[in-house]
Amino acid sequence: MKLVTYEVKARELTIHGSPQARIGWVSDGWIIDIGFAQEWATLHRGLPVTRVLPTELLPFLETGREGMQTLIRLAGEMEGEDPSTLQVEGEPVALRETEVNLLPPLPTPRSFRDFYAFEQHVKTARASRGLEMVREWYEIPVFYFSNPHTLIGPGAPVEKPRNTRELDYELEVAFVIGAKGRDIPAEKALEHIAGFCILNDWSARDLQRQEMKVGLGPAKGKDFATSIGPWLVTMDELEDRRQGDHFDLTMVARVNGRELSRGNVRDLTHTVARMVERASQNCTLWPGDLIGSGTVGTGCILELGTEIQPWLEPGDEVELEIEHLGVLRNRIVAAGE
Amino acid sequence: MKLVTYEVKARELTIHGSPQARIGWVSDGWIIDIGFAQEWATLHRGLPVTRVLPTELLPFLETGREGMQTLIRLAGEMEGEDPSTLQVEGEPVALRETEVNLLPPLPTPRSFRDFYAFEQHVKTARASRGLEMVREWYEIPVFYFSNPHTLIGPGAPVEKPRNTRELDYELEVAFVIGAKGRDIPAEKALEHIAGFCILNDWSARDLQRQEMKVGLGPAKGKDFATSIGPWLVTMDELEDRRQGDHFDLTMVARVNGRELSRGNVRDLTHTVARMVERASQNCTLWPGDLIGSGTVGTGCILELGTEIQPWLEPGDEVELEIEHLGVLRNRIVAAGE
Repeated sequence: MKLVTYEVKARELTIHGSPQARIGWVSDGWIIDIGFAQEWATLHRGLPVTRVLPTELLPFLETGREGMQTLIRLAGEMEGEDPSTLQVEGEPVALRETEVNLLPPLPTPRSFRDFYAFEQHVKTARASRGLEMVREWYEIPVFYFSNPHTLIGPGAPVEKPRNTRELDYELEVAFVIGAKGRDIPAEKALEHIAGFCILNDWSARDLQRQEMKVGLGPAKGKDFATSIGPWLVTMDELEDRRQGDHFDLTMVARVNGRELSRGNVRDLTHTVARMVERASQNCTLWPGDLIGSGTVGTGCILELGTEIQPWLEPGDEVELEIEHLGVLRNRIVAAGE
Repeated sequence: MKLVTYEVKARELTIHGSPQARIGWVSDGWIIDIGFAQEWATLHRGLPVTRVLPTELLPFLETGREGMQTLIRLAGEMEGEDPSTLQVEGEPVALRETEVNLLPPLPTPRSFRDFYAFEQHVKTARASRGLEMVREWYEIPVFYFSNPHTLIGPGAPVEKPRNTRELDYELEVAFVIGAKGRDIPAEKALEHIAGFCILNDWSARDLQRQEMKVGLGPAKGKDFATSIGPWLVTMDELEDRRQGDHFDLTMVARVNGRELSRGNVRDLTHTVARMVERASQNCTLWPGDLIGSGTVGTGCILELGTEIQPWLEPGDEVELEIEHLGVLRNRIVAAGE
């Protein structure tokens, strides 16, 4: 399933009067609201309610396997229905994609770790700082913690920070933890993942370069915006692209419609399963923890060079696409716009 | 005021039947429960209830200046009362410190940033990695994000991770954001701080050394435990130690009763106000964000050398003391104990 967090676009068009962001799933251009769908199926199909599904993603993830099974059963019950006809108390259960704004599928993760797991990107990024590869990179998957409070969704504007001249995008795949765990072995890791999404780890290269000299890694260089979306794709939809712990999913980035970056999730040196293993060593991972892969090779301007693509400026549109995960588009605007 | 998050020690001794952690303030060996004190003051002193105070610290901080003023008025109303006699519906409003466990005053911060703002520590830590000081350290206060989900309180055991041989303590001062803000200038920064506390940023030096070679800063080296406490001291209690943006507060660390570290919050090169300014550039700080200072000079074994104090082992007790902020004690135990 493709899970979204959405709000109704026009203020006069509410869904059951609810002004808040709610969760739904995507089906053929429709967003089907999870809560209202459950009401509908209970009223019209006699679906027994053993668990009322929460209307936000974080508490939904916390319902664990039981909640996900309830949702899968619900979606199965509704297959073949015409979303435009579904109503509860005279109000729609589904809205067209054009009637809603998609927010980040998980608006505020519990935490946000970002790895550095594609070799080509690490080589090029280090070379740009005059550094060779180190043996430690091959031995362990390394990550840094980033700000979980600056997430934006598909279509949202990215404010270019006033104090950067070197705004960059980063093409990454990300995943969200669905089941709590500690010291999770790689063999069990995929069971702890709720789903995958696209991640754009917007970077201010000049700020990052300055602070990284001090040795604590990137912080303010990334601390203004991270896009995720357009939806969270559950693991069952990726099963046919799984080869052991690897996933064969082509990744592409375009700036103003021109393709600049191309890679594949399969090229990860440290797999998603190894990332979960590493992240959970000595500490608990929680449902709603967001984990990024790091940038795929060629997946940012820092790697490509500014002769290929100048640093981003207001007006530029960046489009990230990953097979099965959709397209994540954002436009740069000036700070305060 | 000294704000605490506490739970009742003995299961049979509940406070109004509440099994959850609640907030209170410390007064002469008593923990006065904020919620029950408000009930008491309403019933017995006719204190008008314009705002019912939340029973957890994060929502309390979100009530902002109004909530804090309500609390100060409440505490004023109760001054001179004998805590042992205060009751609501036959149950106590206050418990003795010996009857409760103190949890981290803020059990789950919204985010956790840790700076690196004491020059002597940075010089020694860099020298231990064969690095000289860099000009950038003097130009900007630099921080990294850390895990907000591994906080422990005073008296709680610290599990020594199985995969480290070099467990260290770090003597730091920390503060919690009380008022939301973005691009906060240093001159306004102190208005955004709810209070100060002691912070022990437990560190696995061998894990940290390995991952930091890759250049993303510390992550797993710190990703198992951070102690804060014993209480959050509100800014009014520190006013007489403030000299401009500096605070004159002696900091001491002892291992098994022997003093090893001594410094002063006044020695910060980058003041607390400058940290707020830096952290809030291009992004919003929220009530409940936790920010650490970085280690004071001499404030860890890495600096002192293992000939002065070997790496920590199960059984060792570390005691951090900062003037006006109390004493934060934790004992090391083996993993899984």
